[in-house]
Amino acid sequence: MELVSVGHVESSLRDRDDAPKQGDEGAPEAWLVIAPEFGAALDGIAAGDELLLLTWLDRALRDVLQVRPRSRTTGPVQGVFSTRSPDRPNPIGLHRVTVLELDGERVRVDQLEALDGTPIVDLKPLLRTIDER
Amino acid sequence: MELVSVGHVESSLRDRDDAPKQGDEGAPEAWLVIAPEFGAALDGIAAGDELLLLTWLDRALRDVLQVRPRSRTTGPVQGVFSTRSPDRPNPIGLHRVTVLELDGERVRVDQLEALDGTPIVDLKPLLRTIDER
Repeated sequence: MELVSVGHVESSLRDRDDAPKQGDEGAPEAWLVIAPEFGAALDGIAAGDELLLLTWLDRALRDVLQVRPRSRTTGPVQGVFSTRSPDRPNPIGLHRVTVLELDGERVRVDQLEALDGTPIVDLKPLLRTIDER
Repeated sequence: MELVSVGHVESSLRDRDDAPKQGDEGAPEAWLVIAPEFGAALDGIAAGDELLLLTWLDRALRDVLQVRPRSRTTGPVQGVFSTRSPDRPNPIGLHRVTVLELDGERVRVDQLEALDGTPIVDLKPLLRTIDER
C-alpha cells in the first residue's frame, strides 16, 4: 500500500505551529501543483468546483493512538480515530476546498490549512448527496 | 508514503461488479474489524457517530487517469480527479458511514459499498462545520 505523490501544496504556511487546525479557521489560499504526468487526471475540473483534497501530512507523528482533544487542556485522552488530529497511524489529511482558478496543472484553492510542500495524494469531487447525506 | 492496514472490512459484498457505486445505492451493513494493536485509537467512538472511513481499494486500477463517467455510455472521458472512480493513482476509498454498534475492536456500520477484505486506512469523525460548510 504505497502511495505516489501526484503533486504538492504551495502555501505561505511553513510551520505546523502557525497553521490553523482547519481550513475555515483563517487558512490562506494555496496552489495545488499537480505533477505533469498526472495532469490528465485534472480534466473536467473547473473554477467553482468543490473538491475533497487528500494529502500526506508528512510532518505528523504516526505512533500516536490517543490524544487530548484541543478543546480541553486537561482530562482524558481519546482515540485518534475519534479526532481529526494529524497524528495518527496513516496521516492522510482530508481538506474541503473550492477551486478558484486553473492554470495548466496548477489549481488555486481557497482556505487550506496544509503546509507548504505537503504531498498531494488525491482529489475527489464533493458529492453532496453522499458526503452530506 | 507507505500505508499501514489498521484493519479490514467484513461484508457480504465479494465482487466489484456486485457492489453499488456509493453506499446510499443499496449497500449492506458491514463490520469494520480493527486490528488489536490499533484498538486504542477507537476510544471515544460510540453508536450513532458519523464517520469518514478511508479504505485502500485493493482491486482498483492505478494506471488510469481518465474514465467515462458512469452517467454516460458514450462520449468523452474525463480526468479521474473529477470523478469518484475507484481507478486512480492512489485508490483511497472515502466512505461516509454511521456507527450502529461497537463490539470490542469491531465496529458495525450502515450502508458501505466496500468489498469484503478491503483494508482500512483511517477513520475520522465527520465535522459538520468543516465537511459540510
